[in-house]
Amino acid sequence: MPNYSSMDKNALCKELEKLQGYYENYKAQGLSLNMARGKPGSAQLDISNDLLYALTPETNFKTSDCPDCRNYGGLEGIAEARQLFADMLGVDMKNVMVGGNSSLNMMFDTIACMMENVWGNQGKLKFLCPAPGYDRHFGITQYFNIEMITVPMTSTGPDMDMVEKLVSEDSSIKGIWCVPKYSNPQGITYSDETVRRFAALKPAAKDFRIMWDNAYIIHDVSDTPDTLLNIFDELKKNGKEDMAFEFCSTSKITFPGAGVAALAASENNLALLKKRYNFQTIGYDKLNMLRHVNYFKSFDGVLAHMQKHKAVLQPRFNMVTDTLERELGNLGIAQWTKPNGGYFVSVDVMDGCAKRVVALCKEAGVVLTGAGATYPYGKDPKDSNIRVAPTYPPVDELETAMNIFCVCVKIAALEKLVK
Amino acid sequence: MPNYSSMDKNALCKELEKLQGYYENYKAQGLSLNMARGKPGSAQLDISNDLLYALTPETNFKTSDCPDCRNYGGLEGIAEARQLFADMLGVDMKNVMVGGNSSLNMMFDTIACMMENVWGNQGKLKFLCPAPGYDRHFGITQYFNIEMITVPMTSTGPDMDMVEKLVSEDSSIKGIWCVPKYSNPQGITYSDETVRRFAALKPAAKDFRIMWDNAYIIHDVSDTPDTLLNIFDELKKNGKEDMAFEFCSTSKITFPGAGVAALAASENNLALLKKRYNFQTIGYDKLNMLRHVNYFKSFDGVLAHMQKHKAVLQPRFNMVTDTLERELGNLGIAQWTKPNGGYFVSVDVMDGCAKRVVALCKEAGVVLTGAGATYPYGKDPKDSNIRVAPTYPPVDELETAMNIFCVCVKIAALEKLVK
Repeated sequence: MPNYSSMDKNALCKELEKLQGYYENYKAQGLSLNMARGKPGSAQLDISNDLLYALTPETNFKTSDCPDCRNYGGLEGIAEARQLFADMLGVDMKNVMVGGNSSLNMMFDTIACMMENVWGNQGKLKFLCPAPGYDRHFGITQYFNIEMITVPMTSTGPDMDMVEKLVSEDSSIKGIWCVPKYSNPQGITYSDETVRRFAALKPAAKDFRIMWDNAYIIHDVSDTPDTLLNIFDELKKNGKEDMAFEFCSTSKITFPGAGVAALAASENNLALLKKRYNFQTIGYDKLNMLRHVNYFKSFDGVLAHMQKHKAVLQPRFNMVTDTLERELGNLGIAQWTKPNGGYFVSVDVMDGCAKRVVALCKEAGVVLTGAGATYPYGKDPKDSNIRVAPTYPPVDELETAMNIFCVCVKIAALEKLVK
Repeated sequence: MPNYSSMDKNALCKELEKLQGYYENYKAQGLSLNMARGKPGSAQLDISNDLLYALTPETNFKTSDCPDCRNYGGLEGIAEARQLFADMLGVDMKNVMVGGNSSLNMMFDTIACMMENVWGNQGKLKFLCPAPGYDRHFGITQYFNIEMITVPMTSTGPDMDMVEKLVSEDSSIKGIWCVPKYSNPQGITYSDETVRRFAALKPAAKDFRIMWDNAYIIHDVSDTPDTLLNIFDELKKNGKEDMAFEFCSTSKITFPGAGVAALAASENNLALLKKRYNFQTIGYDKLNMLRHVNYFKSFDGVLAHMQKHKAVLQPRFNMVTDTLERELGNLGIAQWTKPNGGYFVSVDVMDGCAKRVVALCKEAGVVLTGAGATYPYGKDPKDSNIRVAPTYPPVDELETAMNIFCVCVKIAALEKLVK
């Protein structure tokens, strides 16, 4: 099939009619497929089942800094778990706090802490939101009534010219959300230059914070993984360690919702967070921390574990991008990323067509993330970005879902072109 | 030994000298004993070890409302866990949300939610704090800059005349902290009349909330357990279900810090909380919920389990109150409670002597909860209340610690009397 832009209206109408036939056939099958959220599939969950049996009757519940992990205490988490995350993040253990089951919750609590202790009573606040981005980051920002300013993503990370200009000029801009490695949804890893420019920011707001959500820090899906500069190494060179909070979790390493989350921060920032955590809780689930420590033994153990996830995910991501290439490759109606890791493939359809594609898919039984969800306030200005999540559905369903998706992308484009 | 008030100064001085001799002997032993916090002891923790093996390779991770507990989702918790807590609290499952490992954290989040969505922007806020009470309740209140008003405790609960008068007159009073059963630290259970008066409150503030922390709901330490009226049953009779949040957890049923917490609330209040929880997290640890459900099977299973805790705790509480009776019984220098449950024995020493007793104990190697901690702002107006926590130290250490404690109570009283 040639590029749609080279076809005349008659040919486009014929093509649309043909595709509508395909579409009706799919619809008639009464399918129920889901490519909406970045949830691991069953095969991935099975990989970690032995974690559940990592505490045995022989387990010694005493660790280097905890007399009994079954009892109260230890707000920062047990030393062994802090060390595991320190190795993962490339920071010192003293800069790590291990929390509950959700890094999202730690980010929420961090923003709440900043609002209550630092940012409050300064009038209208703003946050920079590289987009497309993670809808739940935008949700937290909106919950706290912080105005969101969209910053376009480029192939090397957020548009840093814009970031530098905005933060240096406007002291009401208090932070920026970043998924620096295998970004959600595009799978872009920030270039070394981007990380260095982040670490060298000179914000007008002295209380500006980078929310560095390293959710996919070791989540490769290809044999040519990306590498990311260590933000804290770069910040240290500039004496700006207080400018960032970093987050990660084992949600997509062991079990979503039953994993362990952690944050890294400077000593000043940890002291600031503890102003709140000291009142919020006595401590997080140390037995689940110990379970993870016993199971993985070391960070090398975590890395070996991630190879098993990669073995499950690599063919899925390949299938998604191969299908896009085969079905849409030379039509001139869509672009997409081919990420080396993360949980998503980001597809840009023709301007004004994303909502239509999602609606068409839904009618044919394929659920996608809502169009616009990847932008602040759920509003994609071009109505073009769609986030595809290849991890959750069974492989055969994924293949069908992708075929339907491509048919819908073509129909939406043709509808626009023949108007 | 006769009542100190019947002794002349000379006899008192002689008695003080004798006790100082005992005290120096204790000090010379270089002890390190702790009766400070309500932590279960090792024998209690051992009771629940099998919980850790309640998920097996044969476990089906599917529950009635969750396709796979290992994956994301289910903000309210799994149905089976909600039902278990519903049975415990005597409410409908639809009114229960199961959270993470800490009911304190759920209370903190509830206050935060009320501040952000309901109470905010109303100027100075106030909370009623029955005292002596739980220091961490007061800590949350202080963190959110809510003024605390002390309400005296009586043998049937808070002084309800005062509570009714204050809440009906002052719309800036937004709530009250209650530990209605086996209160912390006195072990007092609110009388039926007290509960009914709570349920019939007519607060000037339409957004007034009772924080009903039912931490010791099934935590008996005697053969004559107390009973508590169901607050939601009483509230319903008055059409006031929105006036209370109730909290509980398995922290002192299974493992502190690795248990499961829950709250009960009206549908309106749950909807209000979800305004925040929806942004805060994707969901809590469902595998730990499933672990608890599998382990206990039913609420009857929980009750049977609590008998094992009682068998450990009953002799400890008896030893504490027996020692107090034997050493201080007729001296006229202290009163204490003999609770049927909970985690504490509350001792009122002579006015102005609590800090001195705690300091004397500390010097002799016995750590107690800081004097004043049981009052708002850490200030006991009479400097007389001391919270004794008999659960954590080994039994022989507890006996020594109590003997030292009684010597210190006597010394502090004599120091005051001979002045």
